[in-house]
Amino acid sequence: MWHDDFVNIRLSGDGAAVVILDQTLLPNEIKYLQLSKPHELYDAINTLKVRGAPAIGIFAAYALYVLARQQKTDDYNKFRAEVIRLGAFLDLARPTAVNLSKQLRRMERLVKKQAGTSIPQILENMREEAEQIRREDIEICRAISENGLKLINEDSGILTYCNAGPLATSGYGTALGPILLAKERGIDLNVYCCETRPLLQGARLTTYELNRAGVACTLICDNMASIVMSEGRIDAVFVGCDRVALNGDVANKVGTNGLAILAKYYDVKFYVFCPSTTIDADCATGVEIKIEMRQPGEMKEMLFKKPIAPHSIDCFNPAFDVTDNTLITAIITENGICKPPYTQSLTQTISRARHP
Amino acid sequence: MWHDDFVNIRLSGDGAAVVILDQTLLPNEIKYLQLSKPHELYDAINTLKVRGAPAIGIFAAYALYVLARQQKTDDYNKFRAEVIRLGAFLDLARPTAVNLSKQLRRMERLVKKQAGTSIPQILENMREEAEQIRREDIEICRAISENGLKLINEDSGILTYCNAGPLATSGYGTALGPILLAKERGIDLNVYCCETRPLLQGARLTTYELNRAGVACTLICDNMASIVMSEGRIDAVFVGCDRVALNGDVANKVGTNGLAILAKYYDVKFYVFCPSTTIDADCATGVEIKIEMRQPGEMKEMLFKKPIAPHSIDCFNPAFDVTDNTLITAIITENGICKPPYTQSLTQTISRARHP
Repeated sequence: MWHDDFVNIRLSGDGAAVVILDQTLLPNEIKYLQLSKPHELYDAINTLKVRGAPAIGIFAAYALYVLARQQKTDDYNKFRAEVIRLGAFLDLARPTAVNLSKQLRRMERLVKKQAGTSIPQILENMREEAEQIRREDIEICRAISENGLKLINEDSGILTYCNAGPLATSGYGTALGPILLAKERGIDLNVYCCETRPLLQGARLTTYELNRAGVACTLICDNMASIVMSEGRIDAVFVGCDRVALNGDVANKVGTNGLAILAKYYDVKFYVFCPSTTIDADCATGVEIKIEMRQPGEMKEMLFKKPIAPHSIDCFNPAFDVTDNTLITAIITENGICKPPYTQSLTQTISRARHP
Repeated sequence: MWHDDFVNIRLSGDGAAVVILDQTLLPNEIKYLQLSKPHELYDAINTLKVRGAPAIGIFAAYALYVLARQQKTDDYNKFRAEVIRLGAFLDLARPTAVNLSKQLRRMERLVKKQAGTSIPQILENMREEAEQIRREDIEICRAISENGLKLINEDSGILTYCNAGPLATSGYGTALGPILLAKERGIDLNVYCCETRPLLQGARLTTYELNRAGVACTLICDNMASIVMSEGRIDAVFVGCDRVALNGDVANKVGTNGLAILAKYYDVKFYVFCPSTTIDADCATGVEIKIEMRQPGEMKEMLFKKPIAPHSIDCFNPAFDVTDNTLITAIITENGICKPPYTQSLTQTISRARHP
């Protein structure tokens, strides 16, 4: 059973630093980092010490509070300008997940509304807002998990991809949430985890979480998804996501759209799980989503004892891809299960989120 | 340009050992091994020190000769029984590639025909037969390459999978042959190589060969094949194979059937390259092909500095999968290009091979 007392992102006791579990070292080492300098906070996002769209949003809110505290001014306009500058800096750490921008904008909106309030009081309000973002995420994960559980039967075969569990959020996770909740309710599942190259979030993080929660699972390499589906072992693919366009196109970890094509071929359900804040109303289709390109070293050397390819070889290393909405069975948020046509169902979900 | 003087499998000067380039150490170390003991020869196949369906066949022929030399008998019947026993032993090293069985059977047939011949003369004939198998492979690779070159235009985007180059054969390779020949003829291509988890034959071996031949290529993780195709970078997928059923179903490195499904979805050509000996006339459909299951350590630890998953996690590690004939554009052998319906075109190709 998953432990609700597991905390992967929090403020230090004095509020001067963000404390995170370093996800790059899992499952071999449990190490917490205290981060307070601008470049440390940026680097934690950029190098995936903290990762997962919702988790990045929560971390960024805390990070902006920690950096705002360091401003040596009691002039509101200077303070506000500095907060906006620091937010813009953190926002550059990764481009694809919408949650990073959205939570930074939420923190900035708070500051913009507080002309006339003392700086210490604004800081107190920022801290409370960041904590509120984290609390909301826990509730949202719970609601997503409940909604997702409706899609699962005893002995269902579920294929997971990358990591969309507690480490990627502050709660039960998005795509992994229904699986953890099923365990709590005594429902047995057959869970397969894709390792998710190049950084192996599936092998390192998802299996770690499932193991810790007592959920049996089977690890496969990403190129084994097809044979596993062909043998009838999988009823549904569960993935999280980093940005949803209004037409239902979904950006998620590279490899997701290939899995969706395989699922269509084998007549396997393909479900995407996310908070409604991951739906980007300013983005009409997946074509508009910026795909982050990362360094070749992640593919050729990182995590390996020796280089796995000749030094001079070129690499193409996109971190995400876009899955066409025609391949997606449903998108599950805290507000319910959205089905095609997505432009309609997603718009309803967002408006429900805005006027709870 | 590829060097014809590259030799990855040969007999030692005195004929007492098989000398191979250890493929598990590439690209970081060039190390040749001299193998003569039964368990060493078996282990070389089983642990992929020598791999690639045609290369395994050549190696097995040499290995059977080396082991036959060690028999201390001048009784033909004892000698023959021992050769058959040793052949059966080597044949167990890996189950999926048909070439291992076929070349061992060919060597055994030779011995069976030589009642009345002295043991030293039989050994001499076995040695010549093994050398002949290697020479034929070089010619076959050349013919496959010429046939494959007809499918390539200047600036074609080609996606390769696993390794089907010189290291997997004794010549130019099967699927990689047309690419090396294109280089020789001054035809530029855009070559993408899938790394091919878990043992990374694409990243370690194919990029090594292409690099050595001066062919520019781009390495991708297996889960990036879909995004690369979706961007219009790929005109054709080129793969080798380990066994072809008479209906055109193809067993090849795990992940191949997923690539074929993606190719169909994106309207990309999907070509399979092999010697006609890889067509198994005794196998009607892919359902009959035995898929080798390998150890979890290959996925969780091998090649990595530290474990990449919790120790207790289950792994599913099939080495191959079967691609449905409906997904294959053509199967290219030394005798030409076979198109659907495959039962007809493959049968013609085999009969041409049998009566040259």
